[in-house]
Amino acid sequence: MDDQAKQNAINRLKSAVGHLQGIVNMLEKDTYCIDVIKQIQAVESALEKTSQLILDSHLHTCVTTAIKGDDSNERERVLSEVVEVFKWR
Amino acid sequence: MDDQAKQNAINRLKSAVGHLQGIVNMLEKDTYCIDVIKQIQAVESALEKTSQLILDSHLHTCVTTAIKGDDSNERERVLSEVVEVFKWR
Amino acid sequence: MDDQAKQNAINRLKSAVGHLQGIVNMLEKDTYCIDVIKQIQAVESALEKTSQLILDSHLHTCVTTAIKGDDSNERERVLSEVVEVFKWR
Amino acid sequence: MDDQAKQNAINRLKSAVGHLQGIVNMLEKDTYCIDVIKQIQAVESALEKTSQLILDSHLHTCVTTAIKGDDSNERERVLSEVVEVFKWR
Repeated sequence: MDDQAKQNAINRLKSAVGHLQGIVNMLEKDTYCIDVIKQIQAVESALEKTSQLILDSHLHTCVTTAIKGDDSNERERVLSEVVEVFKWR
Repeated sequence: MDDQAKQNAINRLKSAVGHLQGIVNMLEKDTYCIDVIKQIQAVESALEKTSQLILDSHLHTCVTTAIKGDDSNERERVLSEVVEVFKWR
Repeated sequence: MDDQAKQNAINRLKSAVGHLQGIVNMLEKDTYCIDVIKQIQAVESALEKTSQLILDSHLHTCVTTAIKGDDSNERERVLSEVVEVFKWR
Repeated sequence: MDDQAKQNAINRLKSAVGHLQGIVNMLEKDTYCIDVIKQIQAVESALEKTSQLILDSHLHTCVTTAIKGDDSNERERVLSEVVEVFKWR
């Protein structure tokens, strides 16, 4: 992954950590359940954006290198990994 | 898309059409709501598998061609499209 | 389910059927993969809205009846079903 | 929310915090992108299970109270909130 994408992803994950710690506080203070669920869903959205960012960098680096390379097994492996994370649930 | 993937995707979509028509019948016969919702969720799963199949073929054809090609704008366009459909909601 | 919600859900499912048949045509005419995937994702969105509509009606009918009723097993069953379809993947 | 569900949810969120901090370390050590994405997706799954747990408790407390109560506006508000978080993306 290039350095900018890496730093961006790290910052987003650290922000998600802070968000989750805030949600723990909300629960300890007996915040209304629906408000807690909405905050958890906001963290999930932030995590998905982070995954998207990492995938973008991955496509520009490893996937591009593998496709340009001569090793067809490596190409297959790399492409099948992208398909695998595409829909993961 | 290669012919086999195309035919596979068409077959899966036609099967999803039949499944949805069955769910319309379920609603007309006042089937229990939760059972209807579960069937709709099964169709969504089938559609996601179909998208995954199409993406797999797309990576092996258009994306591979673009990455090997000389047009950097085209490469960027093709990679950004993959990121875009990765998380779409 | 009340009649209005039922008819609304049936109309949305029939519309999704038409949409999917259009996507089959797109595939047969070799439409660009990414455009096909986006259309499939649009159908998934429409199906989720339909599920939401059915759940709304279910909460106002069966769930309300069960909660007001005297049968605690029935109450448990109905509430656990809602939790089950909440996150299904 | 009842105390047991609350403590369970807090524990799960704290575990997700630890998991995310581990993923930050993975990124700092240049772990392979796909492995990072899979770990992020595992945290998302854990968060969805936590939401499900909170919803379960919410249905047994606030929603049950509202449905048994005399205030129809309150009932409507509570049911529409459940529908709203059902599909949030």
